[in-house]
Amino acid sequence: MRFIARIVVEPKDGVLDPQGKASMKVVKRLGYEFVDDIRVGKHITVEIQATNKKMAEKIASELAYKIFTNPVLEKYEVSVFEMKKAEVIEK
Amino acid sequence: MRFIARIVVEPKDGVLDPQGKASMKVVKRLGYEFVDDIRVGKHITVEIQATNKKMAEKIASELAYKIFTNPVLEKYEVSVFEMKKAEVIEK
Repeated sequence: MRFIARIVVEPKDGVLDPQGKASMKVVKRLGYEFVDDIRVGKHITVEIQATNKKMAEKIASELAYKIFTNPVLEKYEVSVFEMKKAEVIEK
Repeated sequence: MRFIARIVVEPKDGVLDPQGKASMKVVKRLGYEFVDDIRVGKHITVEIQATNKKMAEKIASELAYKIFTNPVLEKYEVSVFEMKKAEVIEK
């Protein structure tokens, strides 16, 4: 079975997010008053072959932790979806 | 009402993704044979005050297009959720 894992890596709460801060300035300058907070992080899409969803989730979490996250400054979030046939054929 | 918008910006299909390619090399070297593809993009979380979800979606899409995406090389995806009371109080 094929799965798509989406990994989101963001600065931990309380850690300075210079990209988010800079974006806020631009957003306000463009006149968007009702935007309160912006956080900028990474988004990683991974295609995984695994026998079941649990296995795919395990692999995705390992990748998120070992490769994509700096655990001192960043936190991550993983979500895994089964890939539909059509998407596989399309490749 | 308060909303959370999640904006994902990724390289368009067919556009070279050097970060994804480099990550693939590392993943294979670490022995993850069943990982087939990695795409690396940006993930932006935006807090928006708006009268309804449609309005929040409009603002989020504008921000995605005007500020966070290079339309020549990148594509974006926006999803908007209403923020629950608890989350607002927590702030």
